[in-house]
Amino acid sequence: MHLSKKDILNTSRITRLKLINSITGIKPANLIGSISKDGHSNLAIFSSIIHLGSSPALIGFIMRPDKTVRRDTLNNILETKYYTINHIHQDFIEQAHKTSGKYSKDVSEFKACNLTEDYSFEFPAPFLKESKIKMGLKLKNIIDIPDNETKLIIGSIEHIYIDDIALEDNGDINLQIINDVGIGGLNNYYKLEKIAHYPYFRVESKITK
Amino acid sequence: MHLSKKDILNTSRITRLKLINSITGIKPANLIGSISKDGHSNLAIFSSIIHLGSSPALIGFIMRPDKTVRRDTLNNILETKYYTINHIHQDFIEQAHKTSGKYSKDVSEFKACNLTEDYSFEFPAPFLKESKIKMGLKLKNIIDIPDNETKLIIGSIEHIYIDDIALEDNGDINLQIINDVGIGGLNNYYKLEKIAHYPYFRVESKITK
Repeated sequence: MHLSKKDILNTSRITRLKLINSITGIKPANLIGSISKDGHSNLAIFSSIIHLGSSPALIGFIMRPDKTVRRDTLNNILETKYYTINHIHQDFIEQAHKTSGKYSKDVSEFKACNLTEDYSFEFPAPFLKESKIKMGLKLKNIIDIPDNETKLIIGSIEHIYIDDIALEDNGDINLQIINDVGIGGLNNYYKLEKIAHYPYFRVESKITK
Repeated sequence: MHLSKKDILNTSRITRLKLINSITGIKPANLIGSISKDGHSNLAIFSSIIHLGSSPALIGFIMRPDKTVRRDTLNNILETKYYTINHIHQDFIEQAHKTSGKYSKDVSEFKACNLTEDYSFEFPAPFLKESKIKMGLKLKNIIDIPDNETKLIIGSIEHIYIDDIALEDNGDINLQIINDVGIGGLNNYYKLEKIAHYPYFRVESKITK
């Protein structure tokens, strides 16, 4: 199937959403935990978490402009400056997906979706107890993307928690062992199976030819 | 394992690179195709491709500041304004990974890595023939991320090609059928197996509770 720009514009909204949300390939599956100043916790699924750099350790995610949708996650981050990012595993995909539903403001998605709030490391935002990889972040910057009114939310990593079983001898993290999942498009979930490992050229070697 | 911000700073460069590059979970595996004004084609692996919006259809990726590394991809995009994004499949992971090696400027990674340039749809940048999902993009904006001197490169989708076998009856793209892969950290590759599909709440339904 080939679609030109004009063809894409002429597809129905749902078809276009499905296509363009799938077209980049597999996406990471994470839950962002946050809490309002007056103590209402929030948990929301995001597939747009992205590594921005390792030194300093910076992580980004994309926030959509939806004026029709309440954006508790962003409001909480703006209020407290802190949030957590928590991996989704196979045994709670459905619960994680349910956080994308619409709940009234006084309902915590942790409770509504049967997931467990965890306040560790004296960090001011809730971690997800069920996650085997999680991090605590401090808001660093918000960059407006004028082209479609989205925002790139940038946080610096303050805490990392990794279940020991995920750590390989060489320092790599094994996403298969902890039953991590990926997201395809809007609502398809994939399990991961590690099939290859190659030298990292930039650091470890040069190709001679 | 728990690491505070101070612990992270105190890890060795390689360990930190491995950890922070893995911490967001699975990443999409794509090759960006481009060509210089004087006709030197380039193919480079990227794990930072991100969906920015469906209407208009905008895709972003992160470009690192590395002053030590030649950035042919960005230079070509700046020269011609056009580039392609092509999925990586299981049968050419090693070739795709090899594009991250250092080649002299007159060597095309297509040739060096035994992959096939394809100029379709009268598009001015090279597609990867071996890819079952690919798109042609026009440079739309470059946004500086001052926090670590990276850049968010934004393109608008001009062409989409999807192999018919990837399209499900409901309009979803199936990433397993086309043997798509994901990247963990710097150099670990995972195959994908679809295990769940749930209603898309924002569009299709509301949770009543």
